Amino acid sequence: MVDSIDTHKAGEILAKVQYPAQLRELTVEELPAVCMALRSRIVDTLSRNPGHFASSMGAVELTVALHYVFDTPADRIVWDVGHQAYAHKLLTGRAERFDSLRKEGGLSGFPNPAESEYDTFIAGHASNSISAALGMAVSDLLTPGNELRRTVAVIGDASISGGLAFEGLNNATQHDNNLLIVLNDNDMSIDPNVGALHRYLSRLTTSARYNRMRFRAYNFLKRHNILGDKGKGLLIRFANSIKSLVSRRQNIFEGLNIRYFGPIDGHDVENLVKVLTEIRDMKGPRLLHLCTRKGKGYTPAEMNPSVWHAPGKFDPLTGERVKPAVPATPKWQEVFGRALVELAKEHSEVVGITAAMPSGTSMSMMMEAFPDRVFDVGISEGHAVTFAGGLAAAGKHPFVAIYSSFLQRAYDNIIHDVAIQSLPVTFCIDRAGVVGDDGVTHHGLFDLAYLSVIPGLMIAAPMDEQTLRDLMYSSLSFSRPLAIRYPRGSAPGGRQGDFGDILPGKARMMQEGEAGGVAVLTLGAIGNDASVAVGRLRDKGMRVAHYDMIWLAPLDTDALEHICDRYKAIVTVEDASVHGGLGTAVTEWVAAHAPRVKVMKLGVPHDMWVAHASVERQKETCGYDAAAIEAAVSQLMNN
Amino acid sequence: MVDSIDTHKAGEILAKVQYPAQLRELTVEELPAVCMALRSRIVDTLSRNPGHFASSMGAVELTVALHYVFDTPADRIVWDVGHQAYAHKLLTGRAERFDSLRKEGGLSGFPNPAESEYDTFIAGHASNSISAALGMAVSDLLTPGNELRRTVAVIGDASISGGLAFEGLNNATQHDNNLLIVLNDNDMSIDPNVGALHRYLSRLTTSARYNRMRFRAYNFLKRHNILGDKGKGLLIRFANSIKSLVSRRQNIFEGLNIRYFGPIDGHDVENLVKVLTEIRDMKGPRLLHLCTRKGKGYTPAEMNPSVWHAPGKFDPLTGERVKPAVPATPKWQEVFGRALVELAKEHSEVVGITAAMPSGTSMSMMMEAFPDRVFDVGISEGHAVTFAGGLAAAGKHPFVAIYSSFLQRAYDNIIHDVAIQSLPVTFCIDRAGVVGDDGVTHHGLFDLAYLSVIPGLMIAAPMDEQTLRDLMYSSLSFSRPLAIRYPRGSAPGGRQGDFGDILPGKARMMQEGEAGGVAVLTLGAIGNDASVAVGRLRDKGMRVAHYDMIWLAPLDTDALEHICDRYKAIVTVEDASVHGGLGTAVTEWVAAHAPRVKVMKLGVPHDMWVAHASVERQKETCGYDAAAIEAAVSQLMNN
Repeated sequence: MVDSIDTHKAGEILAKVQYPAQLRELTVEELPAVCMALRSRIVDTLSRNPGHFASSMGAVELTVALHYVFDTPADRIVWDVGHQAYAHKLLTGRAERFDSLRKEGGLSGFPNPAESEYDTFIAGHASNSISAALGMAVSDLLTPGNELRRTVAVIGDASISGGLAFEGLNNATQHDNNLLIVLNDNDMSIDPNVGALHRYLSRLTTSARYNRMRFRAYNFLKRHNILGDKGKGLLIRFANSIKSLVSRRQNIFEGLNIRYFGPIDGHDVENLVKVLTEIRDMKGPRLLHLCTRKGKGYTPAEMNPSVWHAPGKFDPLTGERVKPAVPATPKWQEVFGRALVELAKEHSEVVGITAAMPSGTSMSMMMEAFPDRVFDVGISEGHAVTFAGGLAAAGKHPFVAIYSSFLQRAYDNIIHDVAIQSLPVTFCIDRAGVVGDDGVTHHGLFDLAYLSVIPGLMIAAPMDEQTLRDLMYSSLSFSRPLAIRYPRGSAPGGRQGDFGDILPGKARMMQEGEAGGVAVLTLGAIGNDASVAVGRLRDKGMRVAHYDMIWLAPLDTDALEHICDRYKAIVTVEDASVHGGLGTAVTEWVAAHAPRVKVMKLGVPHDMWVAHASVERQKETCGYDAAAIEAAVSQLMNN
Repeated sequence: MVDSIDTHKAGEILAKVQYPAQLRELTVEELPAVCMALRSRIVDTLSRNPGHFASSMGAVELTVALHYVFDTPADRIVWDVGHQAYAHKLLTGRAERFDSLRKEGGLSGFPNPAESEYDTFIAGHASNSISAALGMAVSDLLTPGNELRRTVAVIGDASISGGLAFEGLNNATQHDNNLLIVLNDNDMSIDPNVGALHRYLSRLTTSARYNRMRFRAYNFLKRHNILGDKGKGLLIRFANSIKSLVSRRQNIFEGLNIRYFGPIDGHDVENLVKVLTEIRDMKGPRLLHLCTRKGKGYTPAEMNPSVWHAPGKFDPLTGERVKPAVPATPKWQEVFGRALVELAKEHSEVVGITAAMPSGTSMSMMMEAFPDRVFDVGISEGHAVTFAGGLAAAGKHPFVAIYSSFLQRAYDNIIHDVAIQSLPVTFCIDRAGVVGDDGVTHHGLFDLAYLSVIPGLMIAAPMDEQTLRDLMYSSLSFSRPLAIRYPRGSAPGGRQGDFGDILPGKARMMQEGEAGGVAVLTLGAIGNDASVAVGRLRDKGMRVAHYDMIWLAPLDTDALEHICDRYKAIVTVEDASVHGGLGTAVTEWVAAHAPRVKVMKLGVPHDMWVAHASVERQKETCGYDAAAIEAAVSQLMNN
């Protein structure tokens, strides 16, 4: 089942190549065994400690070849996204700690310069590698003594469709640099007929040596039957909508004046070493196009790479995935997905948009029900929002589902292309708040601050399923933009009934407290943690008020007035930066209208980057889990 | 000198074609006279009332042809940026109000749906037209009864280099739509030899009719000697770095599966009408590539289009520009530009980056002094910042000069590619605050809010020239990112001496006030308005304190402690949204530490989009000019 050597032998091999310098002492012929060992280790570890599997398996030979040919860390490898970088971590002094991957205090799931000198740049958001690597490559040519340092950007076929990657490509020939871009293309269906590819390859810029390489690559493709099926035409289709990026007649990279090499097999490590050696010291920007297979070397993953993107725990021998316990309550994203389908049934103006996150946001549900009315625009968050603006301007009501952290990429689009015109777009912001294992690059902590400064934009967060449904439903009649945020993970399990109207700027009292006491004001799902705290306090004899604010904008100032009349202190709780969200808004209102009332803000501390750990641990560390809420209220009650 | 008819006759013609429906009653042969009339009117009006000149002059025939061929407003034209849309305004019922262009209460300088049903989308930030128009085109096919509405996106050669435009192109073939994209290419140096162009054209998808058109276009180009000079190779160079976008072998648009037509002469209105008519009802997305000339029809502008982009007042007959009075003090951007050159001389790690704003930011000064160390990346703000991150990771210290409003496009890049890694990048944010005539899309009002939530990012704003210089100088030793914001226009005229160290988070007392009175706390250049107000109050016998806070992050809490001890009330003043900036930060600190002190916040009201007017009027309307500051302080003093 598993095309790999045994774990013991893998361990022996990896013990000898803990660093790239040791790898470079091997012969080329010894490299396939290293690849096998890396795969074996990835399978072994990830079967117990879940992570991103298929991408890293597909990049093993590339990783080995890069570290073999390039003089890392003096030479720099910039990984895009970094799902694919586990072999890189194993080869750069982190094999012994690999079991700690994505665990609190352990290795990050992504490259991070804070973790290793071999990690040259942060890599959590897609499409940044070309721009960042270009900066390094340009810098080296400007720096006496650094001229011979080399820089390689490794970017996947999905990431390269982002506008930022295009801007990087578009600028790559503008300044002196020797950047090598490796396009790791793991989702291509290469369908040109032999003649077309032959003619295509024969056009590439060549040395005699390169001509030989090219010929070998051509033969390889022919031998492995990657060529064929004339009927399908002349294009290589990228996962993410760039069609015919490379075809017989049109090559976008050469159109941008970037020298193009490939496509070649990304799993033939010996050939990869040869090709990389040949193009390593060429001058000017250039791109090497590799064809790889997600999950390569592990049959179950090769057969179903999307499931094996992040498969969870599994049996390494059989490939049987450990079924996670069925959660008792639905995920927030599922509540969104179902509600959207229901709304779309009744309202023909409803359309859905996401940016390469159909399953992560459950937009996939509407895709199934109304495929013509859902648009997955790929890794293009800016376009997603401006496109929504265009749809709204023409009479549709788009629901745009994007993770909070990635929506940062569409900030200007929200302002300029939606909010100024007050277009009816509903932003459904998933993964708002801390997100757990993915860590520092993936939290959605800034949305309340960056959205609340935008004039006229309504902002809400549901504490339960029905409120999310009602917010979505009600947004159809608001005639202006609304942002709804909700976290990763499970909703509390409340009733999901008929849609109902929800009044903008109207909070909900969950529990009245004793006069002169404390009121807890929460925004969104974190209100459920507050309910636990308030319940515990009640058990201790303290009757504390709890308001589910629902709305950050407009803020329920009537409720605030009542609260300030009745209570001496307020605790605000939000799953977001404590700066610029609910706590700030409440503090400002109270300061202006009832300054005698004390406000204590709980949330993610202002100047803190939150490291990877479980969501529960992150809330605890940041001081806004149920225990922290309970402690804060107790302190205020006793003052 | 002026290739135009007299103003009187122009007026007569335009009186007859106030709306496109009237235009469409003319014969094709009558259109050149309309174009002449439009040009005459633009020259006449803009000579007295300055605006964007050259772009609009270059788009006259295109505008006439579009409204002639398409059934506007049922058919939609989406203008990108909209500098080019003056003829469009003249033809769509706004000729009578054209003299009010960019004036308070008058026509906006950009298309704006709030102004006219012919303005289909907002158009102040570049590169959004394809995405927005695609939304409309897709919507129409989904909407029974709307299937025959047509949508045209008009985008310039600079705008199309933005990542957003690429994302739009990349998605244009993903969903059913009949979008027509017109590439208005006014900065091309078309240098292919005749044979190559001929072969290129002969490859285009064609009907017999189109073949004839193509032949005519080819003959036109040949006749006008646009072809020739074999030595320069085969490429059309776009203003903004896309080289060989269209060449003999590589056509990016066809690479993206978008049907490509052109290039054709964009000033032959009769031919334009024919071509547009021929491709108007084709199915699927397609692109028409026009060659136009900036300033077309007005010789001085044709000869020097960049000066005539926005030339100010001029004599319409001679083309002599009215020299604006030499300002007594330098512009903020010039202070930045000079300081950067001085720093670059002493510090080899200093590099400069801007995104198509070299003259607007005065990055041009360093370009002249150190051309190898300045990077104008074109309309690619996201890339500018990530590229800066790469340069910084490799040991450089980039100064990134971008307007506040456009920096919104690089928000995620600031967070992900600079701040998480705490890389030493200095953001020099020009046009921060209200910007005057350009209006709602161009103000820099949100930066304090969207930046201040980012952990570890330092934020400062200078009140005078020397402080800007010292902030820039000091940032070289901070080893972390710093954002410095300053407004459009003139600095106060203070001394510019040697560089000096400036302490992070240290405010400056400008004037002490009487104990128990009021303190005015300002951030940035608006402090000079506050100084005026404080001076007037002093003349009236009120000694009011004034602190130039300099820093928003870190905030000077020592100063705040002292201020709260001594004064009963604080007025904060900032040239930014009153939400999320200085006022908010001070309010929060005071609420936590000295709640008896009253805080009044002056700035742009939270929920207000500020319309075009003069900067002074905008400050007055928003309530934070010197008079408003004086009034606020008086009120607090007397309470």
